Amino acid sequence: MAVGQSHIRKDVRAKVTGKTRYTDDFSMPGMLHAKYVRSPIAHGLVKSIDTTAALAIPGVEAVFTHEDVPKILFATAGHPFSLDPDHQDVADRLLLTDHVRYHGDEVAIVVARDLLTAAQAAKAVIVEYEELPVCVTSEAAMAEDAPAIHPGGNSIKSTTFEIGGKLEDAEKEADLVVEDTFSTPIILHCHLENHVAYAYMDDNDHIVVVSSTQIPHICRRIVGQALDMPWPKIRVIKPYIGGGFGNKQDVVLEPMVAFLTRKLGGVPVKIELEREEGLVATRTRHGQTVTARAGVSNDGIIKFIDLNVISNTGAYASHGHSIPMAAGSKFCNLYPRSVSKFSATTHYGNIPAAGAMRAYGSPQLFFGVESVLEEVARKLGMDSVDFRIKNSARPADIISKTGNKEHSVGMVECLEKGREAIGWDVKKEVYARQEGNIRRGLGVASFSYGSGTYPACVEIAGCRLVLNQDGTVHMQIGATEIGQGSDTALAQMAAETLGVDYDAIHVVSEQDTDVSPFDPGAYASRQTYVAAPAVHRAAGKLKAQILEHYQLMTGEEAETLDLTGGKIIRRDQPESVLLDLHDLALDSYYHKERGGQLTAEVSSKTCTNAPSYGCTFVDLEVDIEMCTVTIRQIINVHDAGKIIHPLSAEGQVHGGMGMGVGMALFEELLVDPESGRIYNGNLLDYKIPTCVDIPDLQCAFVETFDPTSPYGNKSLGEPPIISQGPAIRNAIWDATGVKINEIPMTPKVLFKHFKNAGLI
Amino acid sequence: MAVGQSHIRKDVRAKVTGKTRYTDDFSMPGMLHAKYVRSPIAHGLVKSIDTTAALAIPGVEAVFTHEDVPKILFATAGHPFSLDPDHQDVADRLLLTDHVRYHGDEVAIVVARDLLTAAQAAKAVIVEYEELPVCVTSEAAMAEDAPAIHPGGNSIKSTTFEIGGKLEDAEKEADLVVEDTFSTPIILHCHLENHVAYAYMDDNDHIVVVSSTQIPHICRRIVGQALDMPWPKIRVIKPYIGGGFGNKQDVVLEPMVAFLTRKLGGVPVKIELEREEGLVATRTRHGQTVTARAGVSNDGIIKFIDLNVISNTGAYASHGHSIPMAAGSKFCNLYPRSVSKFSATTHYGNIPAAGAMRAYGSPQLFFGVESVLEEVARKLGMDSVDFRIKNSARPADIISKTGNKEHSVGMVECLEKGREAIGWDVKKEVYARQEGNIRRGLGVASFSYGSGTYPACVEIAGCRLVLNQDGTVHMQIGATEIGQGSDTALAQMAAETLGVDYDAIHVVSEQDTDVSPFDPGAYASRQTYVAAPAVHRAAGKLKAQILEHYQLMTGEEAETLDLTGGKIIRRDQPESVLLDLHDLALDSYYHKERGGQLTAEVSSKTCTNAPSYGCTFVDLEVDIEMCTVTIRQIINVHDAGKIIHPLSAEGQVHGGMGMGVGMALFEELLVDPESGRIYNGNLLDYKIPTCVDIPDLQCAFVETFDPTSPYGNKSLGEPPIISQGPAIRNAIWDATGVKINEIPMTPKVLFKHFKNAGLI
Repeated sequence: MAVGQSHIRKDVRAKVTGKTRYTDDFSMPGMLHAKYVRSPIAHGLVKSIDTTAALAIPGVEAVFTHEDVPKILFATAGHPFSLDPDHQDVADRLLLTDHVRYHGDEVAIVVARDLLTAAQAAKAVIVEYEELPVCVTSEAAMAEDAPAIHPGGNSIKSTTFEIGGKLEDAEKEADLVVEDTFSTPIILHCHLENHVAYAYMDDNDHIVVVSSTQIPHICRRIVGQALDMPWPKIRVIKPYIGGGFGNKQDVVLEPMVAFLTRKLGGVPVKIELEREEGLVATRTRHGQTVTARAGVSNDGIIKFIDLNVISNTGAYASHGHSIPMAAGSKFCNLYPRSVSKFSATTHYGNIPAAGAMRAYGSPQLFFGVESVLEEVARKLGMDSVDFRIKNSARPADIISKTGNKEHSVGMVECLEKGREAIGWDVKKEVYARQEGNIRRGLGVASFSYGSGTYPACVEIAGCRLVLNQDGTVHMQIGATEIGQGSDTALAQMAAETLGVDYDAIHVVSEQDTDVSPFDPGAYASRQTYVAAPAVHRAAGKLKAQILEHYQLMTGEEAETLDLTGGKIIRRDQPESVLLDLHDLALDSYYHKERGGQLTAEVSSKTCTNAPSYGCTFVDLEVDIEMCTVTIRQIINVHDAGKIIHPLSAEGQVHGGMGMGVGMALFEELLVDPESGRIYNGNLLDYKIPTCVDIPDLQCAFVETFDPTSPYGNKSLGEPPIISQGPAIRNAIWDATGVKINEIPMTPKVLFKHFKNAGLI
Repeated sequence: MAVGQSHIRKDVRAKVTGKTRYTDDFSMPGMLHAKYVRSPIAHGLVKSIDTTAALAIPGVEAVFTHEDVPKILFATAGHPFSLDPDHQDVADRLLLTDHVRYHGDEVAIVVARDLLTAAQAAKAVIVEYEELPVCVTSEAAMAEDAPAIHPGGNSIKSTTFEIGGKLEDAEKEADLVVEDTFSTPIILHCHLENHVAYAYMDDNDHIVVVSSTQIPHICRRIVGQALDMPWPKIRVIKPYIGGGFGNKQDVVLEPMVAFLTRKLGGVPVKIELEREEGLVATRTRHGQTVTARAGVSNDGIIKFIDLNVISNTGAYASHGHSIPMAAGSKFCNLYPRSVSKFSATTHYGNIPAAGAMRAYGSPQLFFGVESVLEEVARKLGMDSVDFRIKNSARPADIISKTGNKEHSVGMVECLEKGREAIGWDVKKEVYARQEGNIRRGLGVASFSYGSGTYPACVEIAGCRLVLNQDGTVHMQIGATEIGQGSDTALAQMAAETLGVDYDAIHVVSEQDTDVSPFDPGAYASRQTYVAAPAVHRAAGKLKAQILEHYQLMTGEEAETLDLTGGKIIRRDQPESVLLDLHDLALDSYYHKERGGQLTAEVSSKTCTNAPSYGCTFVDLEVDIEMCTVTIRQIINVHDAGKIIHPLSAEGQVHGGMGMGVGMALFEELLVDPESGRIYNGNLLDYKIPTCVDIPDLQCAFVETFDPTSPYGNKSLGEPPIISQGPAIRNAIWDATGVKINEIPMTPKVLFKHFKNAGLI
């Protein structure tokens, strides 16, 4: 069985030996380097740009400003194109702007022989600004008299939906209603590899962009749109990439390098962002305010959950309103028997543009949901786990938002497994009798997440398989490996269905939009779910061709045959090998009359979306006087359907848990509320947890089998990050009796709350 | 109509603007450069190699000798793998040798930071040789006491076949028998771009070879064989290449660069040959001796043609015995109603290795055939053209070698068209009455050629088409563009069958064996003939999918629809456009439920081989005292079936005619018969004709339609080179009465013959 085993990852040898070549490891003769000139103010108009001094520096090839770029507004969000104009992303970007909207905005770009010269010249460009009032907070940006950050004003979109019944009715049924407001900060992705891309024009005047991107095919389209070129005249190539976490689900550098090479006659031009640029001048996680209200009956049944989100998307829309809307479509799958009401407003602000980040709004929203429900449970006097078990989704439930029945729902089992693993009941007894400065607490929080974006967006994936001469198979997929292990998982699936060993699958890891099957890319925890049917069907087609070729060779009916372990066998005599696939492959290629190169390709659309589930249990200790939190034990339990590669799945969960702990306790981009200046746009001052900060991470799986995937799997990429925040918050409350409704729960924040509560 | 029009070539803008990137225009960070250490003697054993001085030069990374390379003999010829061990090429090469077999053989290789250092270090490697006796000529090599150049001796293979009846019987029917012996020299390809290749190991420890090769898929296999690696772990990429003429239908540098990168931990290593190395240390055209005997009846019917070829393949077998055998299979298609006997012997010699060159042995063989038949005609007192018309293939003939009926045969029409164009009858009258030093003559010679290699080798080609979002189509083909225009011709075919404009086809010109459809490559004038069915069927499949998608969109039956000019129409109402393909494509990609990326792929084997035909007519003037020849008019007339791209076809003919004139009058690699040293292995001393040497070249086509190709086309790549030699030889004879049975017919050669004939 190839699926379900922890095979050696396809990319692991190159990565652990340091051999992997990332975008910046490639170069081309004559390559030029470009550097942005960035705004030192958060809001203003460019009055003049003097490039004289920059152009005088030896090695400087060109300087371009807003006057040189196409006057074409384009959207950067990594969504597949939508046939519905109302569903298309907000086109609010130019390649360079004369209206700067955040501290770091791009007003000019210098191209030089080397990066050092480009950087020196960028500093020599003299820009004169007219400053405008700055709106950093939601309050400021949404004020009546706020300055317009974009011509249409600062509000991007407000939406409301109500499902599972009428809120009005549910409110009447509720015996207890709790409401609170929760806030989450701007978070940075901090992927290892900075943004880097280069472009050149090929022999046919097509523009080739090589980029560290999660979304090569979308990138192709957006570059085409930004430069008003036919999309197929853009070719995007994605080598291995050093992480993205959603920050490379936006088209950031690619339109610019494409523009530059076109302006410069096709010579290769590279942009590699410095770490500091990458932190603030790409995308961030939206800071949000979530007002959460929940109503329950006295017997502990949730009657309604009513959420109101304010989302500050910053200087440019990017993924904008999709973020709260996507999160809003997920909490209702977790508690599908209550009425769900969801409202969200997204607006501009003079802060760095927020985009996609792992779990796409859900960590923010579930911080509100799982905190307010904790309060409900506690007010009812119910055990937090029992309360969640009582209300969580179960297999018979209808997914309210789509009307589909849930097929595989392991939520209750996850809660039970987590409770057991953390020793909930025993510790609860012990922790109930605490006093003094050091106190321990238990916390739990659940989540649900989608597998892909359907029905919000089209879900399409492609796979092409080629039988090689030695009986191995080359696999081309549109799904992009971004470090998460998708190449490996999809290779396992192909091997499983085809009937060959895992090692017999060679993955063409690099996507090249000229030749790779179409797939929008790595986001929305979609790939193993959405690509699975494409892989499954392509492998089935190739297997059929292989057996048909055996029939051509021997006359034996293909229907009576099978392929297993790379050998042709008779179905009714599986023990005797008829032919090795190697020999069949040679015949198919080189027999003079019969056969051919055996290939199979499938492009498939997925019209289902299987929710995955899970929860975090945490046992922690609070030093009240020091305002510090020490996590004693933390465990994530996931229902991600069938686990394709247990070790990678565990790694995925560990990574998410680490980021979740970082978000809960450490991370926050600080922006001056008056000037919009960034305080800590660097990795010294922006604190991400390191190995000394992160506790041992435990994870467990409840393996269900979702029938909407041929391999039973559901999403696992993003979900591990969602529930740490509320679980830790609930545990601190459990330990101290103090509710913290904001993250990160740093010592500074704890001090404020503990002091307010009279603990110190 | 896309086919039959001279559309703008796909590669022309890049080529005329100098933008085209060839292999040497690419580089990689950290790339090293390698340089061979070559033998200064033609035959001997390496006694010792001292690399101390070379290794001491700063910047030298490594020196490898025969002791370091795998002890795996491999064959280099660019033939598809054969399932029949007896049909596989002779494996007689090591990557480096301690038994040098020609002046220039490879004994060691130096790797350094740059090419200059590598070259310096190569000179610093001290090699001690034990010299062995040298065999340059066929006589020397085939002598009983000749030293063995390879362990098995100097003879590679001897073959005889007799078809169309028994020679014995035909000899009895012949009233006149003529026999003569003809010799042709070693010729060099002189393609513009020298051999260049580099290799590196990718993230999965596969070896990536980027090379100026005509045969990427074959190259992959041979590199795998040479290094004892699974073939799919080799990836070969072919950028645009600057010509090959068969010299890049051999695997020359690729196994070495692959070996070097593997030895050096995967760092990129490049070898670029200097012009002088490329001339003698790659491959040459075989010098041959052809003894030709023909018998005719008194009424001018050829009863038999009996040919005996001695072919000196040089130091290594390379294409070896395939060369005379391939030519031997072609002359019988030209005169299919006579008995054909053919014998050939191929042997080693201490001269540069001969391999494939344009028309693959046919210029040599037809020099014999068309010269001896000229003598027959003259002895019979028949007009040379009439005699050929009488005996040439006609549509009803059976191709003797395969037993197939010939479908399209325009040979007679070619002769008639050429006779008319050159004013044969009028000039013949005038030239009959010549005297004095300056004399004019007329010559004619015919040829036939194959379209591909079937049934000698497997003929397989592949095509994958992808409908882009804007209704254009990306086309991936295994057939390789090597300057001959195959991308353009195949794009025309795809456009024609699909029903879109030629400009709507984007050709992925670069072959990449990981993702390109399988096709052995550019040789044997096979590509437009063998790839045509793959393109035709793939385009038909894609069109069907497009119409089916329209049915999905509208419910209209696909069978009632058609695609033409990129628009969906109803078959019975072709004037009213239902939908633009652009809109259909967007729907297929982005509709949430229906469709997918529409792609179609076909790998097809061709089990036919349509002979093409043609002839050269020449009118020339000989200055007997000066021993010079001035071509007054020369015309090639071709039956290549349907002409896909008239302007490219004309260009192809012009190029071939120029090379043919060069072969007839100028070119010869001179080797010292005693020592085996090369006299003129450089472009100063090896004389290729330039624009001042080449007369105006005329060409004409007799367009037939061969039903074995969906587009009616047959071979045209190589044939234009075949018949200049004998036509010019026959014209000189016509002018002077002197038969020259050797080429090149330089002043030196003419002097010898004119003097012998008593003319001077």
